[in-house]
Amino acid sequence: MSSALHPLDSATALEPAGEGQWRGRTEPRYGNMVGPFGGAIAAKLLKAPLLHPARLGHPVAFTVNFAGPLADGEFLVAARAARTNRSTQHWVIELTQAGETVATATAVFAVRRESWSSTEAVFPLVPPASSIPRSPPLERHAWTGCYDMRFVKGAPNFGSKVPADDSETIMWMRDEPPRPLDFVSLTAIADAFIPGRLFLRRPRWTPFATVSMTTYFHADEAMLAAHGSRELLGVARAQQIRNGYHDQSAELWTPEGALLAATYQTCYFKE
Amino acid sequence: MSSALHPLDSATALEPAGEGQWRGRTEPRYGNMVGPFGGAIAAKLLKAPLLHPARLGHPVAFTVNFAGPLADGEFLVAARAARTNRSTQHWVIELTQAGETVATATAVFAVRRESWSSTEAVFPLVPPASSIPRSPPLERHAWTGCYDMRFVKGAPNFGSKVPADDSETIMWMRDEPPRPLDFVSLTAIADAFIPGRLFLRRPRWTPFATVSMTTYFHADEAMLAAHGSRELLGVARAQQIRNGYHDQSAELWTPEGALLAATYQTCYFKE
Repeated sequence: MSSALHPLDSATALEPAGEGQWRGRTEPRYGNMVGPFGGAIAAKLLKAPLLHPARLGHPVAFTVNFAGPLADGEFLVAARAARTNRSTQHWVIELTQAGETVATATAVFAVRRESWSSTEAVFPLVPPASSIPRSPPLERHAWTGCYDMRFVKGAPNFGSKVPADDSETIMWMRDEPPRPLDFVSLTAIADAFIPGRLFLRRPRWTPFATVSMTTYFHADEAMLAAHGSRELLGVARAQQIRNGYHDQSAELWTPEGALLAATYQTCYFKE
Repeated sequence: MSSALHPLDSATALEPAGEGQWRGRTEPRYGNMVGPFGGAIAAKLLKAPLLHPARLGHPVAFTVNFAGPLADGEFLVAARAARTNRSTQHWVIELTQAGETVATATAVFAVRRESWSSTEAVFPLVPPASSIPRSPPLERHAWTGCYDMRFVKGAPNFGSKVPADDSETIMWMRDEPPRPLDFVSLTAIADAFIPGRLFLRRPRWTPFATVSMTTYFHADEAMLAAHGSRELLGVARAQQIRNGYHDQSAELWTPEGALLAATYQTCYFKE
């Protein structure tokens, strides 16, 4: 894990540790208040089938469930192809540390073909990233320094303590330093929306964690390659906050208005 | 599987077949063109942790991946609690038939507490279910006869061959015969939107299947019990159809406008 690696490649570096199993190590630059940033953990899990010699195609759906804290240090990721069809492949993935499950995941990979296509979601009217100053990283959330974030709407409001009218965040975001977009970085950035939807509506601190996250990849390799290392537009909102949990649905767009991914999560909070 | 059982309870009946494993049998009334209706398969997978003696709380997030066709007859469901915390539990579930994986799933269960709550999603202005005639079941899709479906918008349009302006469906739906709502039936009904979003936009037949589905349960047991066996309002739309796959995001509401669940899926189609 040389210093020449991009921090995300360091955070998601895996070395073989037996059939269908890899060993990794947490990367302090992606640290969060307790353990690493969830997006980096998600990316570690997706990396295993991406590295697997039996891999078919690329991810179309990926779900990760955060089961417990990941301590600084080594961990194992195991990936099993539960079923391989002609054009799709189903993976069951698990991240463990000291014999305990830290995260579970499933992924569907596929070989895609061109087809009739149509985008119904609407790319919002927003000022370009270059016209908005970069938001400073958050204290005690080291990982936020690994992203260039520029807020159009719904920026962190802890300081002002003024509740936002709704839970929507619209933000430009990219890896910092810039890194060509791939399925690994797209998976991580899908969890990079700040602040939590709850906090926009109720800007005071409470223990909070993403519990489960699902990403549907609309982009294929060619779209990601064409995007390169430029910024994405992220749009996220909650539909409902209720009894200790809330959902989040979000889209990740290119600046030209191509929808790369739709991503969903449910978050736990303690009152 | 006596005839006194509701068809959904017959379709999701599981008998113990070893530790953390159950045996079930397909129910012809939930048959689809190839194998059973996906919602009934999803419900079979969720049933295993619900029956497990080590179960903690109730589902908050459930993801199922449809890996291959389920043939008529017996199958096995295995459920493993990968991690149990104080108030959450993480399950890894797999449905197999003749030694082959048919579906994989993960579930997060939780014990929930009352908290500050807020609903941002907007319940649409719709006529009551009683004012709309029941839609006839679809030929060759036996399972559609297991639901009372009444369309407000976006009904199946194969017959007219006229493309809809958008992919949105708004429909009243409930089990037929009526059955008190629980997590099993809510999981099944989350997959009961017809027609596929693609077909609304392009009403001609093409092979089509849900590949992965995630449901976030906002409802707890008390909310489900209060709802009883009345109809739900389902609202579904696609955000993007692209290169053989499209997403679907949907909400399931009570007639009073309480949001019970948000559900997402990605579907494969062949041109």
